Amino acid sequence: MNRQFDTIAILGVGLIGGSIGLAVLRRGLASRVIGVGRRIEGLRMALEMGAITSFTLAPAEGVAEADLVVVCTPVGRIADDVRTVARHCRSGTLITDVGSTKGAIVAEVGGSLPGGVQFIGSHPLAGSERSGAAAAEVDLFVDRVVVLTPSAATQSEDLERLGDFWRSLGARVVTMSAEEHDRALAITSHLPHLVASALAASTPQELLQLTATGWADTTRIAAGDADLWRQIFASNRDSLLASLSSFEQQLASFRAALEGRDDDGLVELLAAAKRRRDTA
Amino acid sequence: MNRQFDTIAILGVGLIGGSIGLAVLRRGLASRVIGVGRRIEGLRMALEMGAITSFTLAPAEGVAEADLVVVCTPVGRIADDVRTVARHCRSGTLITDVGSTKGAIVAEVGGSLPGGVQFIGSHPLAGSERSGAAAAEVDLFVDRVVVLTPSAATQSEDLERLGDFWRSLGARVVTMSAEEHDRALAITSHLPHLVASALAASTPQELLQLTATGWADTTRIAAGDADLWRQIFASNRDSLLASLSSFEQQLASFRAALEGRDDDGLVELLAAAKRRRDTA
Repeated sequence: MNRQFDTIAILGVGLIGGSIGLAVLRRGLASRVIGVGRRIEGLRMALEMGAITSFTLAPAEGVAEADLVVVCTPVGRIADDVRTVARHCRSGTLITDVGSTKGAIVAEVGGSLPGGVQFIGSHPLAGSERSGAAAAEVDLFVDRVVVLTPSAATQSEDLERLGDFWRSLGARVVTMSAEEHDRALAITSHLPHLVASALAASTPQELLQLTATGWADTTRIAAGDADLWRQIFASNRDSLLASLSSFEQQLASFRAALEGRDDDGLVELLAAAKRRRDTA
Repeated sequence: MNRQFDTIAILGVGLIGGSIGLAVLRRGLASRVIGVGRRIEGLRMALEMGAITSFTLAPAEGVAEADLVVVCTPVGRIADDVRTVARHCRSGTLITDVGSTKGAIVAEVGGSLPGGVQFIGSHPLAGSERSGAAAAEVDLFVDRVVVLTPSAATQSEDLERLGDFWRSLGARVVTMSAEEHDRALAITSHLPHLVASALAASTPQELLQLTATGWADTTRIAAGDADLWRQIFASNRDSLLASLSSFEQQLASFRAALEGRDDDGLVELLAAAKRRRDTA
């Protein structure tokens, strides 16, 4: 594996950023990984873990020598952060992000970067309800899908370089438009989070002692950071509402079968759901 | 630990029945565990695993010498099975079950057993989306809750004996009425299953490649046996419909916050769900 990027800057060294740094350095994919953040404690921990080789609180300084900048800040801040750091990058630098929604980011960034700096959106489908550099894992991206969302301005060699980067971390790369990504992820990721949250919230405190592994599995992602998910939901509002409507139709079918004491209909609904789950 | 029951008969040696047998025999809690079933292959596997010490296809024979009979057949069959085997039990035999709903079973069985045979419902909150004796685990009940649902006819010493039995398998025992159990479990177990199923079914086949651990966790229990869950839903219909209504109200709150672009409301809904999940 040749080194595509000698110096990588990671803006926001939490679970995802820290895992990228760990994976890059342990695999020898870059000689320098510069952590850029707001809190010195998190950066110090990332340094001690071997997720970065140096850190700075100054984005301008951190990205100045980078060949690749990975913006791992919360979704609501990514577009601003990309535009800010782009002003301090050298010509030829590639910027990507790891945000869970892509349409708004690609639309806001698109075409507005100073000459010679390229942006392509990434979304690694990997994560956890945990957060922070302490939760970083060297193999977080192994066998996981990373979606790349090129725009009309994207050069094919940049797309290839970025795909190679994610593949070098063990990921499978899928390419689609930002809009297609957001419609799909509303269904496969954002709706499950909304549903898990609604289920957790509709369970009275005094009944928690009567929950078992089924409840625990089904509500696990509701433990995710509330403000982070508010940003994801807000930035993919229309697609999320559409996926919620489909889900509500499924619920209505279950309700109708229950109310109508339709045992055949009920078992067919459950069997169809089981088939879908079993093929995933 | 003294032996409360010398001979235990298990009707239906699948995941739950097999795990009870394994736990009893490995812990030396009975000298004989007789498996009673319909298919010889499953019984033979349970014997080879050490989950039972002998087996029979004839319930009358299997329970004749038992001090404790544990009925582990599907929910829709339990009441009939309890009444059938009770006719062949000795006076003093205690019968219990492991069904996921209790109201209908306790109502159907209540008071109709021949003299000297007692029935008390049990529900171990332990399980898996897997099934069959091959999935049995010796520690399935350790630190899990088992709910006992005595009726007006229950003798306190029988309730104590049954509680001691489950505690000897490592479980925590909680006692409540069958009706209270069913209302609670509709919320903590049956609704999560319905929601997981509706979520799995509302995910188009072609988007399954874009799912990650969040979707996998949230839909895991939808892989459960469709006919078994149809029986559970049907036997707890009214409480399940009530819990579905509460859940739908939560969904409506999320929808309203999204539609109204109410970021503060959205983050508060997510934060309340996270608090509930974090305290479980």
